[in-house]
This record gives sequence, structure tokens and C-alpha cells, in this order.
Amino acid sequence: MNNFEFCSPTDFVFGKGVAIQVGPKLKALGATCVMVQYGGGSVVRNGILETVTKSLDEAGLKYIVKGGVRANPEVTFVREAIVEAREAGVDFLFAVGGGSVMDSCKATAAGLCHDGDVWDLFVKKDGAPVYPIDECLPVGMVLTIPAAGSEGSDSMVITNEELGMKSGRGAEALRSKVSFMDPTYTFTLSPEQTAAGITDMFAHLLERFFSETGNVPITDNLNLSIMKTIRACAPRVLENPEDYEARANIMWAATLAHNGLAGMGRAGDWACHAIEHELSAIDASIPHGAGLAVIFPAWMQYVYKENPERFVLYGQEVFGISRTDDVEADARRAIEATQLFFISLGMPARLADFNIHEEDIEGMIPTLIANKGEIFGSFKKIGADDARAIYRIAL
Amino acid sequence: MNNFEFCSPTDFVFGKGVAIQVGPKLKALGATCVMVQYGGGSVVRNGILETVTKSLDEAGLKYIVKGGVRANPEVTFVREAIVEAREAGVDFLFAVGGGSVMDSCKATAAGLCHDGDVWDLFVKKDGAPVYPIDECLPVGMVLTIPAAGSEGSDSMVITNEELGMKSGRGAEALRSKVSFMDPTYTFTLSPEQTAAGITDMFAHLLERFFSETGNVPITDNLNLSIMKTIRACAPRVLENPEDYEARANIMWAATLAHNGLAGMGRAGDWACHAIEHELSAIDASIPHGAGLAVIFPAWMQYVYKENPERFVLYGQEVFGISRTDDVEADARRAIEATQLFFISLGMPARLADFNIHEEDIEGMIPTLIANKGEIFGSFKKIGADDARAIYRIAL
Repeated sequence: MNNFEFCSPTDFVFGKGVAIQVGPKLKALGATCVMVQYGGGSVVRNGILETVTKSLDEAGLKYIVKGGVRANPEVTFVREAIVEAREAGVDFLFAVGGGSVMDSCKATAAGLCHDGDVWDLFVKKDGAPVYPIDECLPVGMVLTIPAAGSEGSDSMVITNEELGMKSGRGAEALRSKVSFMDPTYTFTLSPEQTAAGITDMFAHLLERFFSETGNVPITDNLNLSIMKTIRACAPRVLENPEDYEARANIMWAATLAHNGLAGMGRAGDWACHAIEHELSAIDASIPHGAGLAVIFPAWMQYVYKENPERFVLYGQEVFGISRTDDVEADARRAIEATQLFFISLGMPARLADFNIHEEDIEGMIPTLIANKGEIFGSFKKIGADDARAIYRIAL
Repeated sequence: MNNFEFCSPTDFVFGKGVAIQVGPKLKALGATCVMVQYGGGSVVRNGILETVTKSLDEAGLKYIVKGGVRANPEVTFVREAIVEAREAGVDFLFAVGGGSVMDSCKATAAGLCHDGDVWDLFVKKDGAPVYPIDECLPVGMVLTIPAAGSEGSDSMVITNEELGMKSGRGAEALRSKVSFMDPTYTFTLSPEQTAAGITDMFAHLLERFFSETGNVPITDNLNLSIMKTIRACAPRVLENPEDYEARANIMWAATLAHNGLAGMGRAGDWACHAIEHELSAIDASIPHGAGLAVIFPAWMQYVYKENPERFVLYGQEVFGISRTDDVEADARRAIEATQLFFISLGMPARLADFNIHEEDIEGMIPTLIANKGEIFGSFKKIGADDARAIYRIAL
């Protein structure tokens, strides 16, 4: 068990009707002028945005509203938001939406405290960030898509559309002050959004479970318990999108999958996230979760021989696969069960489904290495050639 | 799944050698004058206290040291500490020890912000506290006994030795700002301390698992995963007290068992804790964990018919008990496995082991009701007659 530090100071306010507490909670946190960001028009149409602004009004807080955050949020939007927030005297960033909106708010909040262009904060040298993020305006959110875990995580991912580059960044200062989570807000998610979100949260657990660290029972069992819950509740939400209990379990699972707890005392791997991020450079419309559904099984096939026993434990606990005397065969069954689980959600299985082919692979390698360094990953150390091989398995 | 709010802002600093960070971390938190409390002399003898004071010295922080906190910490000690802390201008309370020392620090910190006697904060009417705890000086700790979970919880328990009364109190303001957890510090715990601690943390999970709320898979699975870990690691620490991995797993499990996470979206029960607390009034030297080892199986026998299926799930996941067609028999097997687990740790099985007998029962009822109200508990509503029956089963 590795030494670790864990601090998750976010106030999670969870359940039916909690969004009416936005105004009073933000006021108690010292907000005076809030920038509310959102994505497309769904939060306008379904009234969630209005619930939030009404609550801010009633608490006597000033606010400005800025819609238009895209999936794979773009640095151009963040730059605009920073200018507008500065002009308006904003002192609190508040997201109404999913991970993209939250990450856009986090980047805006960090950018407002950075003397220079906000993209600086995403620039890396040998896989390590160049600028520190010690300060950040407070951020909060009403979550509408359980997936990215940004409501509880210390991280954000922003795309530089000019450079064709997607870059993630972590810092304790980026954690949400308060995250409001109402499972009924997820009733209207499409099956595709629901499934991509489930794949994303599941992948956050896989990245933490499969690493070079030996068994850490407290963390491993906790991680497996969340995967098991997701696997059990996923078919329920797809079958009945208004199953409150299943939606609530999935929503809280997404947070626990990515606030850090499921990896305490262990190294993380994160090679698959890095390899998947490069798909966006080819087609920015690929949902992150759908990309992971394709990349993860390919990575598993490429790396499992490093420690097949770990895959057997995972297969047993999450998919109920009985052990046999053939550890490698059991490990392969766990990998197959993973891919079948993603397919059962309606996720794609091959890069070809995104119209990505052999000839596209080489183009993704340079930015991958620029983002992650020459060697990355933990369960197995991955370099450019390994990444090429994993993309090929996924074709 | 019930609505809930969860905020665990404690900075957990975990692993070998972390106590040298005490000075810098407390300084960063704004401490200028620290009161360090400890219990008996063990932290003096094994050098942990010196590591802490040296780190405070090196960070240039003033401090005063006050030893002598007893198991089941007493309000008289807290009153003295408040006077001394006020005189010295203390602005941070720091515990070096287990839950008793931490609770003494929490009570001191809350008492310093209360205009009146500190016992006021523990006085209840119909089971509810009379005074709010909105403010509290910051507290932190170096943990040496994994058990009470006070390093991450929002609660404290103090004994009024004059009134013969033990009273618990919870408030968000009571959460530790920073908790240092070095598993090597637990190598020297006696088998009795180790076992009582394990029983205590296990009981914190049971109190959250068995309540009136229906199944909440995400929380239930997480809770069961911690119990499973404790059950697997307990024999290892008893067999080899210097097994770092097992000690580390047990230590982090104790925190996760009681920071609230294992009960999110569920009612808690806490009847057993209340019923056990009254044993201290008869004999203050009974370790809390040992008392719980006797009370919990008795409570289980008394209540299991309310929802035997819940016991079957618990037995299956934690003790690997296979299901049969006889749900009640399976539930009883889970209860038996619980008692055998506690006995395997060296815990007592009967109140007679504490020299508590039939004639002592009636004396415990009035303070129990004063502390908890006429009706308490959740899995089954418990009144005075039920408590009498549970004590009788435990005789």
C-alpha cells in the first residue's frame, strides 16, 4: 500500500429537489456574483437552468449566464468566458450540466487566477504541467450527466481546437465546493448519453484497479464494489430511464469512481484515457465513453499477461466468473465480459465504428507522446510502439 | 435511497513517516499556538509525541502539551483543558492517540467556542441536543489506534463521571482538519486493543448496514466491501502485529467505516452503540469495542426477523455463507458467524464477562432513555422494554 494523501472537501448535496438549495449554499460560501455556464439548450428546455437562476435570485446573488459549452470543451470558449467573467466581477463559477460544462467552469476559474493565457495551464513538458495551479476561483455545479466525475474530482480536460490537442490537468484547488445531484435530472438522458456515461465511470475504476501496485484489499474491494453496483444498475436505467433508485445508484457511483477514493494507496494507470483522448483529435464528436469502450478491451488484451491474476479477481467479483486452473484463460474471460458489458450498453466495439482506420494511427502518436511523455501507464509501461499496437487491436 | 448531504473535508495524510509533516501542515492551516493532548505514556515512550513536538518546533509553532486523557474521556479533563488552552491562547487542538484523545480535543475545541459549561453541548432533550455547535476551533490528530474513526467522523463521545453518563454528539464543525495516519504506529498495540478496535470499526459498519431503509446497492456494496476487508485482515494483524500491509488496510478501513460514506442514502440505526454506552456507567474500564462485541450479537438475535433477507445478504458477502431455502436459518447463521468472528479476535461474548448481571440492567435504563429518547433505533424501533430484553440476551 503506497503512502497517500486524500482530501475531498466537496459538499455533495444529493437527492430529489436539491437544486433549490443552490442560492443559499453559494451565498454561505461567500459568492456575490456567479457565472452560470451550460451546454446546449437541454437545461433551458427542461427548466433546470431556471430552477438555478431563480434560487440565485431569491438568495440575492448577481449572476451572468453563458451557454454553449460543447462536448470536449474548447479553450476558445474558456478564453471568452474569462474575459466576460472578469468584466462582470464574477467570484464563483457554477456549472449546470455534465463534465464538459464543469471542466469549462474549472478552466475558467483557474484561468481567472492565472496571469497569462489559460492554455498555459494545460501545456506539459515530458508529461508534467509547466505552470502550477495554486489558486482558483471557487466552482460548483448542478450535475445532469453522471459520467466524468468532475463534480468530485480534482481534474479537468480541455481541448485546444486550433492545435487539435486535448489535455487533462489535475490540482487540488480544482475540486468543486458544492455539487448538487438530483437523480431525476438524469431521467431525460438519451440511451447513448447514459451508456457513454456508464462506460466512462466504469473506466475510471478500471484505470485505478489495474496498476503496478500489488493488492490493496481495502481499496480494491471498495473499487470492485462500485464496479459491481454499476454493472447491476446499468441495465435497469437503460430499460427504465425513470427508475429513480437505479439512476440514483449510478449517479453516486460516478462520483465515487473518480473522487480518488477508489485508488487510494495504489498507483493509477490512465494509459487508456490518454490513448482515447487522441481519438478526439481525429473526430471531436466521439463521446469519451464510447472511445473508452473501444480502447479499454484492446488495452486489456495487450497487457493482461503482466498480471493475469488481477484480471481473474476482477472477473470473479464484477462478472461472477468462476475460477478454473487456467489463470490466463480466466483473465481472457474477464476481458471478454468487459467488452460484452460495453456492447450490452450499446457502445461500439471497434475504431472502425468511428471511421478510424490503420492510416489514422500514426497521426495520433506525436500528441499522445507530447501529452503523456515517452513512457506512461503503470500496469504495463506504454511507449509509442505499444500505443500503436493497442490502436491496431482496436481497429 | 434517501436524500443526503456528504462533506468530508479532512485532509488524510497516510503512510510511513507522515508525522514529520505535522508542523508544516498545521502552519499552512493557520495554527499559531497548538494544544497537544495525549492519553497515557505510550506515545511518550515510543517517541511519537516527540516526533510531533519536534515538527511543531521546526515549523516555529508554539504549543502546550497536556497528557492524561483516559479511555472514555471525561468532561472534568476537558474543562481543565479549556481553561489552560484559553490562558495560553491556543488556536488549534491536536490529538496524539486514539479516539478518546481525539474526542477530548474535539470537546475542548467546541467548548472553547461555547459560552457556558462544555457539558451543555452533550445535554439532550428527547434524544436531541439542546445547544448547536456551529463553531469549533480547528482540530487535527496523529492516529495511533484504528477504532473509533474519530479522525474522519463528525462526532465525539464524552463521559460525565459525576453524573455517570456517557453522551455522544455530532456536528459538521467537529471534523478533523488534518489526520496523520502511520500504520507503523499501530505495531505496538496490544492484541486486546487491536481486537477492540476492530470490533468497534466493524460495528460502525453494522450500525449503518442494518436500518429500515431498503437496499441501496452503491452504499451497501461499499459497506460490505469494508467489512469483508476487515474480516480478512483482522487475523493477519493479530498473528503478526508488524504486518504493515494488514495494519494499513485495517487503519484506512476504520476511517472509511465511520466518516459517513458507508451509510449515504440510508438511515443509520445506532441502537447498539446507545445500549453499549450504558455499560460504561457501571464500569468505565470496559473497552467500547468489547462492549459492542457482546451487545451486537444480542441485538441481532432480537431484531433479525424484521428483515432476515438483509442478514442473509450480509452473511453471504462478509462470511461467504451460502444461501439455502430457509431465509431465517441463513440469517441466524450470519449472526452466529458475527459472534464467532468477535470471539476469534479474543473479544468477550457475554455481559457476565464484565461482571454485569440481571440485577444491573434496570439501573442502565433511565440514562439510556435520557440519552436516546423513549424510542430509538431504525432496523427495529427500540424502547425501554426492548433494551431490557437485549441486555438479557447478552447476560
